[in-house]
Amino acid sequence: MLGRVNHIAIAVPDLTAATASYRDTLGAKVSQAQALPEHGVTVVFVELENTKVELLEPLGENSPIAAFLEKAPSGGMHHICYDVADILAARDQLSASGARVLGSGEPKIGAHGKPVLFLHPKDFFGTLIELEQV
Amino acid sequence: MLGRVNHIAIAVPDLTAATASYRDTLGAKVSQAQALPEHGVTVVFVELENTKVELLEPLGENSPIAAFLEKAPSGGMHHICYDVADILAARDQLSASGARVLGSGEPKIGAHGKPVLFLHPKDFFGTLIELEQV
Repeated sequence: MLGRVNHIAIAVPDLTAATASYRDTLGAKVSQAQALPEHGVTVVFVELENTKVELLEPLGENSPIAAFLEKAPSGGMHHICYDVADILAARDQLSASGARVLGSGEPKIGAHGKPVLFLHPKDFFGTLIELEQV
Repeated sequence: MLGRVNHIAIAVPDLTAATASYRDTLGAKVSQAQALPEHGVTVVFVELENTKVELLEPLGENSPIAAFLEKAPSGGMHHICYDVADILAARDQLSASGARVLGSGEPKIGAHGKPVLFLHPKDFFGTLIELEQV
């Protein structure tokens, strides 16, 4: 079911500072910041050779990463996103295995414009997993 | 400086259960468990198309992931490892930037038999970063 690691998401309290750190201190290629108000985040992509890291800063009142940053104010690794070929087939297989899909269970259009689902971290040893249909 | 994402490490309290979850529920290719007593962990590699996830369970009395699992007993994302071409050059450049290298500052031989260093998570927005010379 799992394809490529699409991205690793890191929540940060200060996107400008984090971007500078990855660009200047770690010498990585970084994108411009993109505000995604419908997803409650502003994102910078750190482009690695084989995948990307996404630096996420809360945007607006109901950011999905606000609670995470309340618990970890300095930031931290938030989730891993894997490609899947068929997200509905993946969902049905996961649900049949007893794994919980967050929200309504219907895929939403994610930050890359493709259908995504999140899986409950308690079912995967504390790791929040996103699946994206590619 | 940063090359490929070498691996994403996830600390888990029960490696057998976590391996079964990635293999059976998520449909990923997983390795046999390898005990690495000199590193204080037992590891299973989850082979993705473009990188790997490493599931780590504490081994022995002074496991480097024991404190993490005390704080997060269910497990969680522990660190990201990036390839670098020259670990001493990377270290010197990072130190000159004010980033803290953990331990003595001298690379140790990591779980893959190659020189590694860890960077202080407080200098990188709560993310523990490992660098591995490839």
